[in-house]
Amino acid sequence: MPKNQTPVYYSDYLRLDKLLGAQQPHSSRYGDEAHDEMLFIIVHQVYELWFKQVLHELRSIYREFNQPKLDDKALYLVAHRLRRILTIQDLMNDQVGVIETMTPQEFLEFRDILVPASGFQSVQFKEMEIILGLTRGKRIAFDQQSFFNRLNAEDRAYLEELEQQPSLFDRVDDWLARMPFLQFEDFSFWEVYQQAVQKSLDQDEKIIRENATDDEQLQAELQGLQANRDNFAALFDNERYIELQKDDRVRLSQRAMLSALFITQYREEPAFNLAWQVITSLAEMDEKLTIWRYKHSMMVQRMLGTKIGTGGSSGHDYLRRTTEQNRVFKDFFAMSTYLLPKSTLPDLPASVRQALGFYFRD
Amino acid sequence: MPKNQTPVYYSDYLRLDKLLGAQQPHSSRYGDEAHDEMLFIIVHQVYELWFKQVLHELRSIYREFNQPKLDDKALYLVAHRLRRILTIQDLMNDQVGVIETMTPQEFLEFRDILVPASGFQSVQFKEMEIILGLTRGKRIAFDQQSFFNRLNAEDRAYLEELEQQPSLFDRVDDWLARMPFLQFEDFSFWEVYQQAVQKSLDQDEKIIRENATDDEQLQAELQGLQANRDNFAALFDNERYIELQKDDRVRLSQRAMLSALFITQYREEPAFNLAWQVITSLAEMDEKLTIWRYKHSMMVQRMLGTKIGTGGSSGHDYLRRTTEQNRVFKDFFAMSTYLLPKSTLPDLPASVRQALGFYFRD
Amino acid sequence: MPKNQTPVYYSDYLRLDKLLGAQQPHSSRYGDEAHDEMLFIIVHQVYELWFKQVLHELRSIYREFNQPKLDDKALYLVAHRLRRILTIQDLMNDQVGVIETMTPQEFLEFRDILVPASGFQSVQFKEMEIILGLTRGKRIAFDQQSFFNRLNAEDRAYLEELEQQPSLFDRVDDWLARMPFLQFEDFSFWEVYQQAVQKSLDQDEKIIRENATDDEQLQAELQGLQANRDNFAALFDNERYIELQKDDRVRLSQRAMLSALFITQYREEPAFNLAWQVITSLAEMDEKLTIWRYKHSMMVQRMLGTKIGTGGSSGHDYLRRTTEQNRVFKDFFAMSTYLLPKSTLPDLPASVRQALGFYFRD
Amino acid sequence: MPKNQTPVYYSDYLRLDKLLGAQQPHSSRYGDEAHDEMLFIIVHQVYELWFKQVLHELRSIYREFNQPKLDDKALYLVAHRLRRILTIQDLMNDQVGVIETMTPQEFLEFRDILVPASGFQSVQFKEMEIILGLTRGKRIAFDQQSFFNRLNAEDRAYLEELEQQPSLFDRVDDWLARMPFLQFEDFSFWEVYQQAVQKSLDQDEKIIRENATDDEQLQAELQGLQANRDNFAALFDNERYIELQKDDRVRLSQRAMLSALFITQYREEPAFNLAWQVITSLAEMDEKLTIWRYKHSMMVQRMLGTKIGTGGSSGHDYLRRTTEQNRVFKDFFAMSTYLLPKSTLPDLPASVRQALGFYFRD
Repeated sequence: MPKNQTPVYYSDYLRLDKLLGAQQPHSSRYGDEAHDEMLFIIVHQVYELWFKQVLHELRSIYREFNQPKLDDKALYLVAHRLRRILTIQDLMNDQVGVIETMTPQEFLEFRDILVPASGFQSVQFKEMEIILGLTRGKRIAFDQQSFFNRLNAEDRAYLEELEQQPSLFDRVDDWLARMPFLQFEDFSFWEVYQQAVQKSLDQDEKIIRENATDDEQLQAELQGLQANRDNFAALFDNERYIELQKDDRVRLSQRAMLSALFITQYREEPAFNLAWQVITSLAEMDEKLTIWRYKHSMMVQRMLGTKIGTGGSSGHDYLRRTTEQNRVFKDFFAMSTYLLPKSTLPDLPASVRQALGFYFRD
Repeated sequence: MPKNQTPVYYSDYLRLDKLLGAQQPHSSRYGDEAHDEMLFIIVHQVYELWFKQVLHELRSIYREFNQPKLDDKALYLVAHRLRRILTIQDLMNDQVGVIETMTPQEFLEFRDILVPASGFQSVQFKEMEIILGLTRGKRIAFDQQSFFNRLNAEDRAYLEELEQQPSLFDRVDDWLARMPFLQFEDFSFWEVYQQAVQKSLDQDEKIIRENATDDEQLQAELQGLQANRDNFAALFDNERYIELQKDDRVRLSQRAMLSALFITQYREEPAFNLAWQVITSLAEMDEKLTIWRYKHSMMVQRMLGTKIGTGGSSGHDYLRRTTEQNRVFKDFFAMSTYLLPKSTLPDLPASVRQALGFYFRD
Repeated sequence: MPKNQTPVYYSDYLRLDKLLGAQQPHSSRYGDEAHDEMLFIIVHQVYELWFKQVLHELRSIYREFNQPKLDDKALYLVAHRLRRILTIQDLMNDQVGVIETMTPQEFLEFRDILVPASGFQSVQFKEMEIILGLTRGKRIAFDQQSFFNRLNAEDRAYLEELEQQPSLFDRVDDWLARMPFLQFEDFSFWEVYQQAVQKSLDQDEKIIRENATDDEQLQAELQGLQANRDNFAALFDNERYIELQKDDRVRLSQRAMLSALFITQYREEPAFNLAWQVITSLAEMDEKLTIWRYKHSMMVQRMLGTKIGTGGSSGHDYLRRTTEQNRVFKDFFAMSTYLLPKSTLPDLPASVRQALGFYFRD
Repeated sequence: MPKNQTPVYYSDYLRLDKLLGAQQPHSSRYGDEAHDEMLFIIVHQVYELWFKQVLHELRSIYREFNQPKLDDKALYLVAHRLRRILTIQDLMNDQVGVIETMTPQEFLEFRDILVPASGFQSVQFKEMEIILGLTRGKRIAFDQQSFFNRLNAEDRAYLEELEQQPSLFDRVDDWLARMPFLQFEDFSFWEVYQQAVQKSLDQDEKIIRENATDDEQLQAELQGLQANRDNFAALFDNERYIELQKDDRVRLSQRAMLSALFITQYREEPAFNLAWQVITSLAEMDEKLTIWRYKHSMMVQRMLGTKIGTGGSSGHDYLRRTTEQNRVFKDFFAMSTYLLPKSTLPDLPASVRQALGFYFRD
C-alpha cells in the first residue's frame, strides 16, 4: 500500500459510469426498443474490450521483438503473454455462442436501422491484423477494398500509417534468420538436415520398390515420392525457394524457415525450448483466429441467410474465404511439411549440445 | 431501413470513445504502469457488461412473472431468455481462466494500490442476487455485513430499496402455487402421488425383507427406508412441511413444490413442457452461479494464498461457503429427493390429458 | 431394486476388461513403443464411443419420425434427445484440442506404420452421415469414391444397404409437408405470407427512391432489391422452386419449406414451439458437424503440412471442402433468407390461434 | 513405412469389436431397455478411457522423477505431458454437462438395478489419486473406509500395494529439496529472502502507523500484520515449520518449499523456467481435479436430491468435502501466501545469474 493513497472504490476504479453508460440502442429512436439490441451492443463491446487487451499484449510482444536482441528473459515474457492471448481467443471463439442465442427474427427487428455499420469497421480488429502482418496485398480482394470504402478518413489514415511499420511477422522472421546456431563451429544444420532428408527419401523408395505388388501401384507411389523430393529440394535451393514465396506457398525467408525447423526438431534442447513455445503459440494464434473467422461466417449465414449483399458477395462467403487466405503464421502451422521423424535425425555434436544447454551442469 | 435514417458508423454506435477510454490503471500514478493491471481492469469490465446483459434479461423475465397471469407466449419468451442467461453464464465461468493467466506475482505488483476496493462492491452482482431472491437473512453471516461495511451510501440505499420488492423466486412460487391442475375435476394430484409413493415404499420394503441375508443388514436397510418414509411424509403434511422450511431444508411453498413435482413428472404433456423448461433453467442458473462462486474461490486462493484477511476470514473460505448456502432455486435442483420412477406413476385420466394437450388434434 | 438381483460391480458392469484391453499400439511391433500412440488410439476410441451414443439417439429419433404421425409427446422426446446430441457435439469439437497436444514430430514417430488406415474408414461416422441424409450424390467427389476404395467388402455392403433407406432428412421433410396448418379453414399462410413479402419489398423500394442522393446509387440499390424480389418469387412459384432444388440451392420440398417458415415466424404459438426447437436443433447439429470438419481440417494441416496425399488431394483441402458441401439441414440454417421482421407480419386469425393453442385456457 | 508391414484397417487397429461390444445395459434383463442407460454406460466408459490416458502420462512422468537426476530434456517432456493432462482434464470437466442431459427421472428408470455399483469402485481413479500422493491418512474419513467396504479383494490388494510406493508428490518434493541453488557459492536464498520479507513487513508497519486515523483501526491493522509476521516466521524456523506440517497447513518439506519459492520468484531465469512450468501445472492439475469433484457433487445432488445414503452421508455432501481436503499439490496452488512483489526482491548476484543462464551467450 503506497503512502498517502486515496481509498479506491470499485465502481470508480472500473469507470462504470462510462462503461455502463455506453449502451444506447437505436431502435428506441424509431419506436419501441427491440429487446435484443442490447445483446447485440454488449456482445460487440465485449469483443472490443478483448481486442484492446490483445493489442495491449501484442504491442508489448512487438516491442521485445523490435529490440536488436531478444534476451532470454524477454523470451519468457513473450511466451507467457502469447499464451494469455490464446486463452482470450478461446473465450472469444466461444462467445459466438452468445450471439447465436438471438434468433434471426429477433435480429431482423433492428437490423435495418444499423445500415451501413459493419464489423468491417472495427479499427482495433484491423489493427491486430496489421500488427500481426496481414499486409494489404495478402488480403482477399474484397477485404483490400474495405479499407477505402467503409472507414472514415481518420480511421483509414491511422491504419494506413500502421501498415507502413514492420509487422510482428517481419520481426519474428528477422529474429529467426539471425539465430546463431544454424552454422556453429564445424556443424552445419543445412547439410545435416539435407542428408537426413536424402536418406529418409531413399529408404522410402527402397521399401516402395520391395513392397510393390503391381506396376501401376509402384508408379503411383514413386510419383508421390518424387513430389516429396521436389518439395524438399525447394527448401534448400535459394532460387526455387523464392519461387515458392512468389506463389504464396511460403512466406518466411529461407533462413528463418531453416531456423524454425531446427528449433522444432530439437526443441528439447534448453536454449530452444522457449523459442519453440513462441513459434507454436504464433501458429495457434493463427489457428484460433481462423476458427473465429469460420464461426463468424456461420453465424452470418444463420442471421442473414444466402442473400447477396450490396458488395456483390454474401458476408458468409466472404468470411469463409478469409479463413484460408488471411493467415499470417501459416508456415509455422504447416511446418510438418518439412519435418522428419526424430529417429531419422542425427544426434547433435557434443559442442552444439553444450552451447544449447545451461551453464550450470549438476 | 427507416426513412430519413442517418448512416450509422460502427464506433459511434458502440460508443467506443467511452468504452475504450474507461481503462485507467492506477499503478502508473505511483511509478511504472504494471503491465497486467490492464488485464485486471478489462476482465472486471467484461464481467460488468455481462452482468448488465443478464440483468436486462432478468428484469424482462421478472416483468412477465409480475403479471397477474403468465400467458403461453410469455412463457416461451421466459424460457428463451433463461437459456440465453445460461449461455452467458458458461462464458463467464470460463472467463476465470483468463484472469488465471496472471500469476500471483504479477498481481502483487499492483494489488496494494487497489485497497480497499473489492468485488463485493459490485452493485450489479448484488442486484442480480437480490432480484433472483437471495434475501439478507439467507446469506452467510459475513455477506450480510458486507452491505454495510463496503458500499457507499448511494449504492447501499439503492440495493436496500430493491430488497423490499418481491423477488423472482417469490413470483415463481406464486405462479406455481396458483397452477390450476393439482386438483382438476375429480383428479387430485396430491392423492394420486401419495398413493404412488406409498406403493413404491411398500414394494421396497417387501424386497428388502425377502433379500436380507442377515438381521444386521436388514435393520440397516429398514432404517434407511424409514428415513425415506419420513421425508415423503413431510411433503404431504402441512405442519411438518413448515418445519422443513424453518430448518432451511426447503424454500418453496408446499403448493408450489407439489406443482413443480407434477410438472416434472409429467413434463411431456404439452401444457407442462415450457413450464418444465423454465424450472430446469432456473435450477441450472443456480448451479452455474454456484460453479462461478467455486471457481472464484479457487482463483482467490491462488492469488492470495491462505493469508487471513482483515475481516477475519480468508476470501477463499468465504467464497467457498457461499457456494452451498447462497443458492436460491436449490429446491428445483434437488427435486429428485421426491421423484418417483415414471413406471411407478399412474397414467393421467383422459380428461386431464386432454386439458393439458393442444386444442387441435389431428 | 428388482427382486433377486445380483449385486453389480462397477468394473463388470462397464466391461472394463474389454474396454481397457482394446488399446494395442502397433509401434511396439517394430521397436520401442511410441509414447504418443496411446493418445492417438484413445482419442479415436472416445470418438467412436460418442458416435455410438449419437447413433443411439439418432435411431430413436428416426423411429419417431418414421411413424405415420409424430405425436406431441414424441416431439418432446425428439427435442430432448436432439439437445443431448448437441451437447455431445460440443464436447467432440473441443476434443480436437486433446489430439493437438501431440506435436507433428510425435505423430511422425508412428504415422507410417498405420498406412493405409484412415478416419474415412469409420463406419459409424458414415452411418451418422447417411442416417441424417448425406446421400452419395450430395457428397464432394473425393468422398463419393472413398466408399469404394477404402472400406472392406462387409462395411461397404452395410453402408450401401443403409443408403437405400429413407433418411432422417426425408422423414423430417415429410412431417413438415403434411403439417395441417398451412391451409386452415379460410386462412392460407401462402397467401398471407406472399402479401406480407410484397408489402415489405414495396416499402423498401419507396424508401430507396426517397433517400437516393444520386442515380448511380439508386440503380445499385434497386438492383439489389430486384435480386431479393426474384429470390422470394421462386419460393412461391413451383417451377422456379424446382429450379432452385436442381441447382442445389435448396433441398427441402416447397411445402416443407413453407411449413418451416410458418413455424419459425410464429414459434411462440404453443403448438409450434417444440417443432421450432426441433428445426433449430437440426440446424445446429449441422453447424456443429461443420465446425468439427473444419477443426479437423486444421488439425490435419498441422500434423501433415501441405504434402499432397496419394489421392491427389491433401487431407486438409478435402476436409475443408466438405465443411461447406456435406451439409444436410442447411435450409433450416439459412432460413433467414426468407424471413420477414415480426412487425411486418399480420396477426393470425383467432380461429388459427385457438387451434394452435392449448385445450385448457385459464 | 516399415518393410513387410501388413496393411492396417481402421476398425481392427482400434479394436472396435471389443470397444463397441462393451455396452450391455442391465435394464433389458428386467424388462424394456431404459433408453438412457446407454448414455450412462458410455459416459463412464469414456471417463475410464481418459483415466487410462492420464495414467499413461502420469506413469511416464513418475518414471522421470524416479531417476536419481531429472535432466533438462526430461523436464521438457514432463512439462509437455503435464500440459496434455490439463487439456484432458478440461474435457473431463466439461463432460459433466453430457450426463446432465439425462434428467433425474430418466436416471430413476434404471438406477435401482445398478446397486451397489458405484463410481467409488473405479480402480483407475483411485490409482491416479494414489500416484499423485493422496495417502490414506490425508483422505476424508468416509473415503478411507471406502477402500475396504466397496472394492473386491483383488482390486483392494492392487491399490494397497500401490500405496506402499513413494508417490509423485514425494518425488517432486525430493527433486525440489535437492536443488543446488538455494545455497550457491556465497549466495544464500534463505538469508536474502528473510531480509526482503523483514524489510517489506517493516515498511508495511511504517505506512500503517503513518496513515492510521484512530487507535482502534491502528490496533486492528497491526494485529493483521503480526499474523503475517508469524506466518513468515514459521517458514524459516524448522521447528515451527514442522508444526505447520503436523496441522496439515503445509505438506511440502521446508527445503522443497523454499526451492519452490525461489523458482517462482525468479522464474524468468532460464534454468528455472521449465521447473516453474512444472510446479504450476501440478497446481493446476490439482485445481482441475477439485473442480471435477465439485461438479460431480452438484451432479449427484441433481440426480439423487438430498436423500441420505446407506453410508450415513449423502453423496453430494461427501463429494463436496473432498474438494477441499483431497488435494495433493495445494502448497503450490496457495504459494502466494509467501510471495513478495518482484519489486521488493533483490537482483541475483551475477555469478548466480550466470549459473542459471545458458552456456552460450550471444
